[in-house]
Amino acid sequence: MYLKNSWYVAASAEELGRGLLGRWICDEPLVMYRKEDGTPVALEDRCPHRKFALSKGELVGDEVQCGYHGMKFDCSGVCTFVPGQDNIPPRLKARVYPIAEKHRWIWVWMGEPSEADEDLIPDYHWNDAPGWAPIMGYLTFGANYQLVVDNLLDLTHETYVHQATIGNQAVAHTPMDTRVDGENVLIERLMIDCDPPPLFKRARGFTTNIDRWQRIRFNPPAHITIDAGGVPTGTEMDTATNPESMNWMVLNALTPERADSTHYFWSVSRCFSQDDEELGEMIRKQIINTFEEDRDILETQQELIDSDQSGRPLLTVNCDAGNAAARKIMDGLIKAEAGGASAGHSG
Amino acid sequence: MYLKNSWYVAASAEELGRGLLGRWICDEPLVMYRKEDGTPVALEDRCPHRKFALSKGELVGDEVQCGYHGMKFDCSGVCTFVPGQDNIPPRLKARVYPIAEKHRWIWVWMGEPSEADEDLIPDYHWNDAPGWAPIMGYLTFGANYQLVVDNLLDLTHETYVHQATIGNQAVAHTPMDTRVDGENVLIERLMIDCDPPPLFKRARGFTTNIDRWQRIRFNPPAHITIDAGGVPTGTEMDTATNPESMNWMVLNALTPERADSTHYFWSVSRCFSQDDEELGEMIRKQIINTFEEDRDILETQQELIDSDQSGRPLLTVNCDAGNAAARKIMDGLIKAEAGGASAGHSG
Amino acid sequence: MYLKNSWYVAASAEELGRGLLGRWICDEPLVMYRKEDGTPVALEDRCPHRKFALSKGELVGDEVQCGYHGMKFDCSGVCTFVPGQDNIPPRLKARVYPIAEKHRWIWVWMGEPSEADEDLIPDYHWNDAPGWAPIMGYLTFGANYQLVVDNLLDLTHETYVHQATIGNQAVAHTPMDTRVDGENVLIERLMIDCDPPPLFKRARGFTTNIDRWQRIRFNPPAHITIDAGGVPTGTEMDTATNPESMNWMVLNALTPERADSTHYFWSVSRCFSQDDEELGEMIRKQIINTFEEDRDILETQQELIDSDQSGRPLLTVNCDAGNAAARKIMDGLIKAEAGGASAGHSG
Repeated sequence: MYLKNSWYVAASAEELGRGLLGRWICDEPLVMYRKEDGTPVALEDRCPHRKFALSKGELVGDEVQCGYHGMKFDCSGVCTFVPGQDNIPPRLKARVYPIAEKHRWIWVWMGEPSEADEDLIPDYHWNDAPGWAPIMGYLTFGANYQLVVDNLLDLTHETYVHQATIGNQAVAHTPMDTRVDGENVLIERLMIDCDPPPLFKRARGFTTNIDRWQRIRFNPPAHITIDAGGVPTGTEMDTATNPESMNWMVLNALTPERADSTHYFWSVSRCFSQDDEELGEMIRKQIINTFEEDRDILETQQELIDSDQSGRPLLTVNCDAGNAAARKIMDGLIKAEAGGASAGHSG
Repeated sequence: MYLKNSWYVAASAEELGRGLLGRWICDEPLVMYRKEDGTPVALEDRCPHRKFALSKGELVGDEVQCGYHGMKFDCSGVCTFVPGQDNIPPRLKARVYPIAEKHRWIWVWMGEPSEADEDLIPDYHWNDAPGWAPIMGYLTFGANYQLVVDNLLDLTHETYVHQATIGNQAVAHTPMDTRVDGENVLIERLMIDCDPPPLFKRARGFTTNIDRWQRIRFNPPAHITIDAGGVPTGTEMDTATNPESMNWMVLNALTPERADSTHYFWSVSRCFSQDDEELGEMIRKQIINTFEEDRDILETQQELIDSDQSGRPLLTVNCDAGNAAARKIMDGLIKAEAGGASAGHSG
Repeated sequence: MYLKNSWYVAASAEELGRGLLGRWICDEPLVMYRKEDGTPVALEDRCPHRKFALSKGELVGDEVQCGYHGMKFDCSGVCTFVPGQDNIPPRLKARVYPIAEKHRWIWVWMGEPSEADEDLIPDYHWNDAPGWAPIMGYLTFGANYQLVVDNLLDLTHETYVHQATIGNQAVAHTPMDTRVDGENVLIERLMIDCDPPPLFKRARGFTTNIDRWQRIRFNPPAHITIDAGGVPTGTEMDTATNPESMNWMVLNALTPERADSTHYFWSVSRCFSQDDEELGEMIRKQIINTFEEDRDILETQQELIDSDQSGRPLLTVNCDAGNAAARKIMDGLIKAEAGGASAGHSG
């Protein structure tokens, strides 16, 4: 079950061009491309004629031509050409998905098109705001998106899974403060006077203990922004004014691919040493290593959940307060949508 | 659902010898071999004792001996030997399939044996008639046989899929004439004054435009013969009398393997330059390339049909007239067979 | 359906150490390890918190620490540590399996723990009794354990499958004597004045015909011991007194892994030339070859059983008397267990 009336990241702005990009989202195949003027387009990746993949055809001007029988469809899904006949049956229509480009990502709306309001696109301005240097990437995880959300809303695991990069003992041992704000969940962890984790040292050269923070925001269906940083212990916890501070936003836009796989669009955007490309490359490598550690965990977890016939639920302890709140919000939204309630939760 | 009371090609005459050949047909495993006198035999490829594959055993004279516990079965499926005991329980009987050899192919009847009339074997005389030089081959496609039938009854796709060999613009743009004749479907496309497609040029050296024809005959459950050819534009469209004509029969005997896979026995038999072996080899390579293009298409199509939960049917346009007629005939035959109607549709 | 109130071999004593060993048994994932004092421990290999595999975590003293969120569990399954909180919810409990070490194998009890009586562990003393030299090994078969039991209770197949090692004509042609003794099945085959099979010749240098015996004992759920041997024809069939005799015990402890796979713990223990290591290595190689021949057979058989929609049962002939008896005993035990009858059949 997916929340359909919702914006999902479908691609990076960079990877979408004048070719046909096929990708599964929420168990539906989509084909995407840019028109000659650069505007993005998304259609169902099944020709309405015999269901062949349009993404295996060709882009002809602003239209897609099916690679099996040559039918052409324009950006509104209307069929404009059927070989060997002049009249075109109106039922030969490809499904069109609302699409938008914002914050260096391409967004699609999987539900009722009339509800697709671009103002509902979640705020990821750190990808393209002045003063921020984003490192962006894309992975797929062989696990349901909710397990990835759980992972990001309970960072306790950093201590056990990511010792080589962002984990330190303080994360596991410091309680979190969790708050629900409408459809959002806010989770805060302040770790005063702790060891800087390895990647913090490499990125910022800390030589003393630090005061570290994590401020997580969950936004349905699966958008998690993490404001993470630190300052030398005892100095001001204000990035704007403290020149020794380290601060980056870890942006996680999760898009369900199939029931047990997830597109993971991520960005780590920093507001220090923005022009240091070498630093950027180092961060990219370390972050990819970190996410691949998560992938191993989540794929194993998915397997063991799938194979469990006991009926026992996942259990929650204190550090799952954020997960539990987010799942409750999502359950409510999915139930409301199934029940026909008005769409378009606030972003 | 398969039409069981029907002849299917199970092997080429060449590949069947004094070894055991195991092959799945209509979701049933068969073991086939030739007796010492050359007569073909087909049994179910499950030993009635413990269901081990007889094809993994040995041929002893005209009998098959199971490779697990040594039981022997003769060509009528009767068990003739059980280790360690003299009396042989009569229920130890292997299922026998009617089998025949005709037109260089081995045929099996998958339904009620008493209905198996060899006169019902479809006409593929171009494989062994004087004056014809067949190139024969075998492929498996990861798609249901009906998708392969669809593909062959609507050759519009040649223009988009097979540009490198048999496709030209004329195919897609020329309407077909479709006619139902009892259980057969006849489809004709005449393309006057068109570019010769690349393989026609290579095979026959056309230097001018041609008058091209395709005459397709569908015969249940999945036999498609295509009379294809061309002559220099304006010359007589009669292969027998026009020395510049090019003409071959494309023979397609499709046999369901499993629900989503098909045995494709094919032959391209020409009535020009019959002794030119180099030409034959060129044709073989080009035809295999062509069919592998189809395979890519059909396997993708199968995947997208299987994953579609929308309930939407495949749509038909003018060029699907032949498909639609063939599917209607097959639906009727399968329904009649399930309802217990007399078997043995005419070949 | 498995018999749960039963001891199963889960590992060799050798392979279990101070690491975490994950293994599926009867469709359940287990993690096993040895405590500092060498005692074996088995827990369910799913953390009760979020179901991650405990076997991917770490052994800390005698406790397992989950590799995802760091929770610790002691050998009784009690959670002793939850990051970031002092009170530990009692429902955070890992399932513990009774475990024992006997006859160089590690045994787990898959059913009701209070019924786990070590006296019920089957007798495999030939693995560690004086005067016996065991060669031990482990394989997995892609087939249900009952097919492997069938295979071992009807050795007729040796003649057809294992001609290169232990098969001779006499096995197939000599009737067996089958007897049920409570929950055990006893099968005896005496082959007087027969060719020695190839492996017997290599192992013992027979130059004349032999008098050969096989005495099989089935013990539920899937323990099969085979007393196999031979003496020069006409000499005394008593291993203890006949210096030319050859005799080994083939021990087969089969443990269901999943519905269609089986852990095969085996041992071939001989009471002649016990110190001849070269002989031991030769036997190991030949036995592994022999069991791999069985694997090929059984995996094919499983496939053909799974794909058969005819509803026809496996048939039994005389040589299946032992199989049939064993299956009947097992059916009764599984039914009784499902019906809540007292557990703990006698070993």
